[in-house]
Amino acid sequence: MTALTPKDPDYRAKVEASFARQAFLATIGAHMTALEPGRCTLELPTRADLCQQHGFVHAGATTTLADTAAGYAAFSLMPAGSAVLTTEFKVNLLSPAKGDKLVARAEVLKPGRTLIVVRSDVYGVEGGKETLVATMLATMICLAGASDPA
Amino acid sequence: MTALTPKDPDYRAKVEASFARQAFLATIGAHMTALEPGRCTLELPTRADLCQQHGFVHAGATTTLADTAAGYAAFSLMPAGSAVLTTEFKVNLLSPAKGDKLVARAEVLKPGRTLIVVRSDVYGVEGGKETLVATMLATMICLAGASDPA
Amino acid sequence: MTALTPKDPDYRAKVEASFARQAFLATIGAHMTALEPGRCTLELPTRADLCQQHGFVHAGATTTLADTAAGYAAFSLMPAGSAVLTTEFKVNLLSPAKGDKLVARAEVLKPGRTLIVVRSDVYGVEGGKETLVATMLATMICLAGASDPA
Amino acid sequence: MTALTPKDPDYRAKVEASFARQAFLATIGAHMTALEPGRCTLELPTRADLCQQHGFVHAGATTTLADTAAGYAAFSLMPAGSAVLTTEFKVNLLSPAKGDKLVARAEVLKPGRTLIVVRSDVYGVEGGKETLVATMLATMICLAGASDPA
Repeated sequence: MTALTPKDPDYRAKVEASFARQAFLATIGAHMTALEPGRCTLELPTRADLCQQHGFVHAGATTTLADTAAGYAAFSLMPAGSAVLTTEFKVNLLSPAKGDKLVARAEVLKPGRTLIVVRSDVYGVEGGKETLVATMLATMICLAGASDPA
Repeated sequence: MTALTPKDPDYRAKVEASFARQAFLATIGAHMTALEPGRCTLELPTRADLCQQHGFVHAGATTTLADTAAGYAAFSLMPAGSAVLTTEFKVNLLSPAKGDKLVARAEVLKPGRTLIVVRSDVYGVEGGKETLVATMLATMICLAGASDPA
Repeated sequence: MTALTPKDPDYRAKVEASFARQAFLATIGAHMTALEPGRCTLELPTRADLCQQHGFVHAGATTTLADTAAGYAAFSLMPAGSAVLTTEFKVNLLSPAKGDKLVARAEVLKPGRTLIVVRSDVYGVEGGKETLVATMLATMICLAGASDPA
Repeated sequence: MTALTPKDPDYRAKVEASFARQAFLATIGAHMTALEPGRCTLELPTRADLCQQHGFVHAGATTTLADTAAGYAAFSLMPAGSAVLTTEFKVNLLSPAKGDKLVARAEVLKPGRTLIVVRSDVYGVEGGKETLVATMLATMICLAGASDPA
């Protein structure tokens, strides 16, 4: 990816304030560990209450992490005075989601003015070893003239 | 959809026992309200701790509901002695997810022996009025010779 | 689907003129057989030169039909002085694409101002009997202030 | 991607023979330019009869190229005596498909025994300069005990 230039110099404060309002991310226990223009990394310690019937992290929790990382990778490039919404995503689940924690790394593929396409990969981390558990392809929309919170 | 015949006459008990092991569904507060061969309905009362930055239910929670309904619509058709896993899904988010509760209705489109393709629609319900908030197209895989829990 | 009102009273002429400029649709031999606001039907007689390695219609040809039907279902709702582009789609291939002809029927699920979400189903028709061979979920964008051709 | 080992030592001959039977690829004028285990590259010279209403290559032709490259990237890893079919894919269209030719490069992300997940990127090439025009995420299925042609 070529270097991306944020349109809003205060993108970091904007993203962090928005993330702090995401109650569902607090509910599942995720936090942001890295942010740069067009890229965002989130981590989620695995917990029994996030799991599905086989004891792996539920695809919905994995998706929550991937989608949120993708949204903030996109939001980091948007101008001030705009809001971000997910319009659609597709997820392929490649391996059981397990380990000490999940890490989602999102990267903008196409920084359009209205639509921003983002790839977001989720890894299960066990003892420092990473396994790709899911990959997402997502489209984010920039709501110009809106505020976040909208 | 033409009527679908379950290969496992005990499909209902099997699906309900599996759903009861889904800790993440309990965490978000979802419950199953209808099940028949190839169809499943789940409900999720909306709560502040499920929301994203604008106060709507997070796409990840909406997806959790849609994916789980899709998985059990598929699982209801699988033979005894098999387990279900999601291989992939795509979600389009059509309207803000809000209301008193969300309802996900999943319906099998193609009951293959190995792969089962399912559509799952999520509605926001406010005072009895339903709005389509998301639609999912998902592929489930039947793990023959596995048990659930695997 | 509730009845949809076209913003452009000349939507039919606009769609037909645009379809006539789609050289690739002529190459594969597809034609439009029905159009109403938010809905479009295309047909493609099967031909040996459209097939993949097993003698079925190639997923790419099936997708071409589904995508084009989806695009014109969306375009039929757009105001005059705008153009339509596909931003993304997902296709599930449910059965081998065969028969005398394929028929794609597209229906708008969400007629947004900027983004229009469309479902498009493709059927194989053999002796009057229809089999669902593929289902698509697509997002179309309205390029306001553009013309078609852009 | 870690190096992938083909289960069929004759994978190259098998893939090339299958590609040669793909009549639709000949119809649009595509050819294979590279193949190694888990990776495949196809090229498509642009032609007026492949275009949509704005004069760009139709999304369906772009998809045909991406899907076929993905299918053969997967097929290169399958054991002898099996056939490949696409079960689903999602495409994001990032830029207008134009240039002297399109190049699709597919890479296996997850070489499962039954399902193989592949990423396939399509570039428009103009005077040696490449622009990413589309990205696909696809699931291929290995039909064991089948032959290709099936």
